[in-house]
Amino acid sequence: MLSEQSFVFKLYTEGLLLLKFISFEMNQNILGGAATFASLTSSMFTDTSIVGIVGSDFPLEYRTILDKRVDTRGIVTENGGKTFHYDSSFDYDLSHRTSNKTELNVIAQFDPVIPDAYMNSEYIYLANNDPRQNMKILEYFSNPKLVVCDTIEYWILNCRDLVVKMMSAVDGVVINDDEARLLCKNPNLVKCAKTIISWGPRFVIIKKGEHGSLFIAENTVFPAPAYPLEEIVDPTGAGDSFAGGFIGYIAKQNNQSFNTMKEAVIYGNVMGAFAVEDFGIRRFLSVTADDVQIRYREYRNLIQF
Amino acid sequence: MLSEQSFVFKLYTEGLLLLKFISFEMNQNILGGAATFASLTSSMFTDTSIVGIVGSDFPLEYRTILDKRVDTRGIVTENGGKTFHYDSSFDYDLSHRTSNKTELNVIAQFDPVIPDAYMNSEYIYLANNDPRQNMKILEYFSNPKLVVCDTIEYWILNCRDLVVKMMSAVDGVVINDDEARLLCKNPNLVKCAKTIISWGPRFVIIKKGEHGSLFIAENTVFPAPAYPLEEIVDPTGAGDSFAGGFIGYIAKQNNQSFNTMKEAVIYGNVMGAFAVEDFGIRRFLSVTADDVQIRYREYRNLIQF
Repeated sequence: MLSEQSFVFKLYTEGLLLLKFISFEMNQNILGGAATFASLTSSMFTDTSIVGIVGSDFPLEYRTILDKRVDTRGIVTENGGKTFHYDSSFDYDLSHRTSNKTELNVIAQFDPVIPDAYMNSEYIYLANNDPRQNMKILEYFSNPKLVVCDTIEYWILNCRDLVVKMMSAVDGVVINDDEARLLCKNPNLVKCAKTIISWGPRFVIIKKGEHGSLFIAENTVFPAPAYPLEEIVDPTGAGDSFAGGFIGYIAKQNNQSFNTMKEAVIYGNVMGAFAVEDFGIRRFLSVTADDVQIRYREYRNLIQF
Repeated sequence: MLSEQSFVFKLYTEGLLLLKFISFEMNQNILGGAATFASLTSSMFTDTSIVGIVGSDFPLEYRTILDKRVDTRGIVTENGGKTFHYDSSFDYDLSHRTSNKTELNVIAQFDPVIPDAYMNSEYIYLANNDPRQNMKILEYFSNPKLVVCDTIEYWILNCRDLVVKMMSAVDGVVINDDEARLLCKNPNLVKCAKTIISWGPRFVIIKKGEHGSLFIAENTVFPAPAYPLEEIVDPTGAGDSFAGGFIGYIAKQNNQSFNTMKEAVIYGNVMGAFAVEDFGIRRFLSVTADDVQIRYREYRNLIQF
């Protein structure tokens, strides 16, 4: 239904590391992509920097949007290389995504380097990149307060063992429901999360699109419905916006109590709800900090009983 | 994946009218079915009676289970008639049900009659039966406090206009997500609910299986996640148990404030969570009122933030 051309983009922040792609719709030429969504949403809570690689065809106007809100000194531009390409489509109800084509291109050989200026970052998000590159990046940091990663079908199918190894090296995993089932070979999402926790992380968040999310730690489950919307223009980027809002809020609070985690999950859902209201990242060009607070309070009122 | 033989059963209660089927698993010979689930769960909150029709092959032991908990004087046994048959299967993740076969058999000609003893009932649930029969039953009642109905794919495909007409005559509709999309020809569940509300009902509850439920009234949405479970033995009957718990709790409270409605939705989710923990209605043979209260409190604690 929706199809995208994506540029490789690995993103990193002061207080937040983001590794992923920037994409835009071919027809509409709209900036999108996981690291873009995650860094823009995180930047609404805390100073955010990104690290990554793009092709020389990455439009200047997109770079300008990012430069205004996040520290982009960690972005490398590779001249002549063919950019990452990802093409997916959604079911009728927009809840299941099918990956039609994934071409790594330039990111296959990307050797991530963290700028010195970013070295004191304490909150790190490894977007759904090659688990080898993610693990290499982690070596740059001596003692981060929180490391969270995501992954996608491509890596689960092509190097599942490395995905498991990467997850064993992080504090938290954020993952889509279908990909959790694929990774853990089990239809039950609570069981999938417990399998992942048995590999090492303290918590797992399963993203369920329009159905919200499940936060699961060893002895705790926090199910949160999505903010209900009548208009979903483009579901792309909801999960990445969730992740950016989640870790951005925790970095801002600078504590990891269960209460803060739960609030962070709700902020994640709020940011995901904004993401789907327009194509690409367009909605975030107008969302203000007040808008975020208003929607958070509305959400809290909605689900209380 | 799961296959059932179902008996026609139209069910009605003192304070609650239930119209639907009783089914049981062919292999395991376990009592199940919408009216059974709905009447047993409702009976944990309030006096509940049923009205319906079964074949003469309906096992005595099942009748005995019902007789102990609900008023069954409204059950008609049709000798020699072939009972209703419904066969369905579930996706890998148990979230989507596919109807493989629906044979009406005896219920096609069923002419529902409400016993005099039931005539003062104030809370009426019309299970997913023929909309013509449901509308006929409504004529027996002069001024019920609350009428709620459900429907299924079969009626939507075969007599959509009558389904719409039935819904315009009730106060609330309880319906599965996939069936709401089919009925309203729209993938967005909030929009589907608003379409149904435009036909007449005050509220709609969309049941989303493992993803919980959405309560929607004109200016209100109450999204509630499902109680998270690691073991789902059999998803059959979860929605019917939701409906029984929902209307049973409202009948017990005897008020329809928004707060009571929200609590009723949570009790509905709790009863649905019990239903899937064993085959058929087996779990309800051991669930106590205390178990229900304990799970309700656990649920409330889980989703607070």
